[in-house]
Amino acid sequence: MKVLIIFGSQSDKDTMKNAKLALDEFGIASESYVLSAHRVPERLEAILEEKENEGFEVVIAGAGLAAHLPGVIASKTILPVIGVPLKGALEGLDALYSIVQMPKPIPVATVGIGNAYNAGILAAEMLAIKYPEIRNRLIAFRKDMKEKFLEENSVEVIY
Amino acid sequence: MKVLIIFGSQSDKDTMKNAKLALDEFGIASESYVLSAHRVPERLEAILEEKENEGFEVVIAGAGLAAHLPGVIASKTILPVIGVPLKGALEGLDALYSIVQMPKPIPVATVGIGNAYNAGILAAEMLAIKYPEIRNRLIAFRKDMKEKFLEENSVEVIY
Amino acid sequence: MKVLIIFGSQSDKDTMKNAKLALDEFGIASESYVLSAHRVPERLEAILEEKENEGFEVVIAGAGLAAHLPGVIASKTILPVIGVPLKGALEGLDALYSIVQMPKPIPVATVGIGNAYNAGILAAEMLAIKYPEIRNRLIAFRKDMKEKFLEENSVEVIY
Amino acid sequence: MKVLIIFGSQSDKDTMKNAKLALDEFGIASESYVLSAHRVPERLEAILEEKENEGFEVVIAGAGLAAHLPGVIASKTILPVIGVPLKGALEGLDALYSIVQMPKPIPVATVGIGNAYNAGILAAEMLAIKYPEIRNRLIAFRKDMKEKFLEENSVEVIY
Amino acid sequence: MKVLIIFGSQSDKDTMKNAKLALDEFGIASESYVLSAHRVPERLEAILEEKENEGFEVVIAGAGLAAHLPGVIASKTILPVIGVPLKGALEGLDALYSIVQMPKPIPVATVGIGNAYNAGILAAEMLAIKYPEIRNRLIAFRKDMKEKFLEENSVEVIY
Amino acid sequence: MKVLIIFGSQSDKDTMKNAKLALDEFGIASESYVLSAHRVPERLEAILEEKENEGFEVVIAGAGLAAHLPGVIASKTILPVIGVPLKGALEGLDALYSIVQMPKPIPVATVGIGNAYNAGILAAEMLAIKYPEIRNRLIAFRKDMKEKFLEENSVEVIY
Amino acid sequence: MKVLIIFGSQSDKDTMKNAKLALDEFGIASESYVLSAHRVPERLEAILEEKENEGFEVVIAGAGLAAHLPGVIASKTILPVIGVPLKGALEGLDALYSIVQMPKPIPVATVGIGNAYNAGILAAEMLAIKYPEIRNRLIAFRKDMKEKFLEENSVEVIY
Amino acid sequence: MKVLIIFGSQSDKDTMKNAKLALDEFGIASESYVLSAHRVPERLEAILEEKENEGFEVVIAGAGLAAHLPGVIASKTILPVIGVPLKGALEGLDALYSIVQMPKPIPVATVGIGNAYNAGILAAEMLAIKYPEIRNRLIAFRKDMKEKFLEENSVEVIY
Repeated sequence: MKVLIIFGSQSDKDTMKNAKLALDEFGIASESYVLSAHRVPERLEAILEEKENEGFEVVIAGAGLAAHLPGVIASKTILPVIGVPLKGALEGLDALYSIVQMPKPIPVATVGIGNAYNAGILAAEMLAIKYPEIRNRLIAFRKDMKEKFLEENSVEVIY
Repeated sequence: MKVLIIFGSQSDKDTMKNAKLALDEFGIASESYVLSAHRVPERLEAILEEKENEGFEVVIAGAGLAAHLPGVIASKTILPVIGVPLKGALEGLDALYSIVQMPKPIPVATVGIGNAYNAGILAAEMLAIKYPEIRNRLIAFRKDMKEKFLEENSVEVIY
Repeated sequence: MKVLIIFGSQSDKDTMKNAKLALDEFGIASESYVLSAHRVPERLEAILEEKENEGFEVVIAGAGLAAHLPGVIASKTILPVIGVPLKGALEGLDALYSIVQMPKPIPVATVGIGNAYNAGILAAEMLAIKYPEIRNRLIAFRKDMKEKFLEENSVEVIY
Repeated sequence: MKVLIIFGSQSDKDTMKNAKLALDEFGIASESYVLSAHRVPERLEAILEEKENEGFEVVIAGAGLAAHLPGVIASKTILPVIGVPLKGALEGLDALYSIVQMPKPIPVATVGIGNAYNAGILAAEMLAIKYPEIRNRLIAFRKDMKEKFLEENSVEVIY
Repeated sequence: MKVLIIFGSQSDKDTMKNAKLALDEFGIASESYVLSAHRVPERLEAILEEKENEGFEVVIAGAGLAAHLPGVIASKTILPVIGVPLKGALEGLDALYSIVQMPKPIPVATVGIGNAYNAGILAAEMLAIKYPEIRNRLIAFRKDMKEKFLEENSVEVIY
Repeated sequence: MKVLIIFGSQSDKDTMKNAKLALDEFGIASESYVLSAHRVPERLEAILEEKENEGFEVVIAGAGLAAHLPGVIASKTILPVIGVPLKGALEGLDALYSIVQMPKPIPVATVGIGNAYNAGILAAEMLAIKYPEIRNRLIAFRKDMKEKFLEENSVEVIY
Repeated sequence: MKVLIIFGSQSDKDTMKNAKLALDEFGIASESYVLSAHRVPERLEAILEEKENEGFEVVIAGAGLAAHLPGVIASKTILPVIGVPLKGALEGLDALYSIVQMPKPIPVATVGIGNAYNAGILAAEMLAIKYPEIRNRLIAFRKDMKEKFLEENSVEVIY
Repeated sequence: MKVLIIFGSQSDKDTMKNAKLALDEFGIASESYVLSAHRVPERLEAILEEKENEGFEVVIAGAGLAAHLPGVIASKTILPVIGVPLKGALEGLDALYSIVQMPKPIPVATVGIGNAYNAGILAAEMLAIKYPEIRNRLIAFRKDMKEKFLEENSVEVIY
């Protein structure tokens, strides 16, 4: 059970790391690659094919500006693709529109601007359809999240 | 293998039908309900629990305006939730932001404004992780799509 | 006569404190809690019920990003709910739309982006409907505001 | 127990009527006037004073474009003022910003674009702080809303 | 020949000073006041009347957020009012819309966001209709501007 | 006392007519021309010079899309230029930004999107600096406006 | 001397025809194809290669929504690619951002929303670098445009 | 084979230098000038004519705010004009709209906000229509880009 993480530039590394960290919480293996739909399309396709053959089951793709990467990946695989709009200009609105507004019939599962962590969680939810252990971990994760939240916020806020 | 489709108002029926039509193409069963996060939260929760127990594996939720429905559903289930922003005001921007900008750690897999068809396809891609037959149908669907496209657009456009 | 202040994260504390400070000016008691509509819905509901029973009469809720908190609270109480959109992304536009565009018949009384102080004043105005002493304090507050403004700006500005 | 409804032009009548209709559901009396902050400021002030003396307790104000009316009213009374942004240009965004972004310490309780019905409900919620009978009607209204919703949407949607 | 400069807060002083500086270049006298449409409406009206009687002929008004000040002034005088949208939130878009979208028949002559200098120039152009010496100075100013620009940029840019 | 009205296309005629109608109310003569900054720059310059020599004292310019016309005119004359953003795309936002955001030191006095009537009123206000009769008519116009408004809206609105 | 016109759907035919019409005015041959970056990438690449070999020298590409087509084409050829954002949602803003915000070093020469005619003119200007006859036709075209404009707008507009 | 680079202010120098750097990579000569459409229109026209006579074949123009410069240049030459929207306010949206939304029949080939480097590449692509050596360098440049990208990103990202 593995997730492929792809983004367009080394400078996106810090943001996209949060996808990996989220997957780590569920014991889901991941590999990350810097790839470009426009600069190295053949390598992008090769990696996609190779990783699909190796059994990767979900792709997370982050991109900024015109942000074609997630959509181009979605057109080249039938694995579900999760898109993370990254802030490059216009507060990330350009990336959001370029990712979420994919035409029929090639969807990209878009999460919030810069929210790579949520992309990792969403990947876990998708994998939980198939893997009961991930399902169980998600249930535990939600329970932990709730408990941690309650613990940290158990009393009235004093300013 | 079943998908739950939820939307907030009978007036969204025509748009959301396209999610069902997309699922039909893959032989994926679906049930659709009009439910409101704010008006009938208990029934929403009851249906979610009931359908999860019946083995539904993905939820598609469409909403307009403040569009809390997909996010509220996502908070109540660990099934992956696909959000469809519907046009009610501001060209659908309000719904898009309310759905896609979900905070950590509760993602909604957002598709394009009004694009319920893509929500259906995305659900199929998620299910294909588990079900080889859906995977095969997706591969065939992509092939058909390509062939149909080529057929319809085989020659130069004459205006 | 008490006002309940709720927000989604300890990081909103500094901004939301201004709601409390505004209430303080009118001698209106308040309690503040960090709660999440999506992470601890049961505790949110419990606090709302408990505080309503204790006689709290207005709720102020601040949230950023998809910002469901004020709307979810509004759906769970008939107390008037004042929503404060907080800046998290997109200059706070996502939070503004997610709060103000609530559908019929569950309104949220929305104030300006990050303007928790105005939320406190608005709560005072609502309470003044019932409590003549708050009404009198509001009249005095407006008078003071005017006098202070005139004092501070009594002469021509010299650059 | 009376609510004052003010808007800037006869052409807003159909939209603003929904505020009155919402109030009617709770047996709350209302009077509506076409008034302009910029064209007849003295009459606006006179009506506000007169109606405040007659015991009106909440003001609902609708306006489009630069939409100063709700804010100007808020500056002239300490009654809570509910602002309804009306669509005149830019999908109503200009009116929304002009109403919701009121500076300290003069808030306007803003509802959704064109959503005068919610303004009426919000007024009822404010009055319910003081009037137990409105509180009871609100509780009944929510119950009815829920029942009606459940009735209308009791079964699976068949397309 | 005098121009009245009004703005809502001492914190706008540095930006609005540029209006005075532009007027200074034409030897046009100006007086600046911090005034608020909502906090001290009577003083605003008193100053407007007093200054109009003293022969002031143009008003420049700067405001941020809901930015009613320029429009309210325009409704209270028939002197031309120049509005300067100031950045407070949303990159100044809220102020721009609240100033420029004034309804019929009360215009505000709006200049760019934060561009108080242009407000001063525009005031000079308005006064030049009446005062030939200002007209001559504007012609000279344009000539100087051109010469200075040519001087500063007379040669190819070497990076 | 004459005002020059310029716009870029015969298709803007109906909207821009409102500028002339506003001027008519004050007995201010106007001439209207369809001219283009980009297509017939020499004729634009010739007309500007000719009309300035004939004693025209204010220019009103309407344009849509990239909407350079008002700014280009402002750069070629020291007469005050009033810009009317016209709706062509993006709800007129492109025209608004292209007109109002003129850089230092060439302002355009911008009015609301499509609001040519206000452009006419603003021209009258500018001319009233010089012409006492226009000043008097403006005072009368405001008085009439008020009276007419009061007459039309003298009683409570009955829906 | 030939221009390749590509767009994503038969439904864009009427808008994109204007690119061909503009090219026709200069006697520039063109061929139009409906192709999709995501649905038939191989055919897109094949056509691009074939047409480049046949001597096509400029590509015009129109697309709506996420609008990847122009950017994907630009990544697959070194011919200059002109992008036409088409209105599908959000007034065409999504397409505009997806086309114009292409990252380094793959530009798309973007024209206005829906403005395929300008795409044709821009293609002619590019070809005029090489072909003196196109250069001459462009000079004549500009002259004709000017004359036609002057003829149609030779006199004052009478409303 | 020369490219003319024009921008409106010395403060744009650092951003616009990237256009020159991109051209340098192809051995394309360029000259840069600070010029203003509104402040020194005659010099702008003179430089354009002079440089066109000297054989310059493409113009790159950068501008912020109302950003008329690229469009005005496009109206004065039939050379292709590449526009670079620069950030001055509103995240550069005002400049983008003012440049890209040029009306028929005067296009500006617009690139991304602040993306002067892409303007240089686009100029090279235009020149490659005529000059085989630039065509060859572009092919080599793409090959290098790909190789460099592959080299820098040859292995899995380790966070």
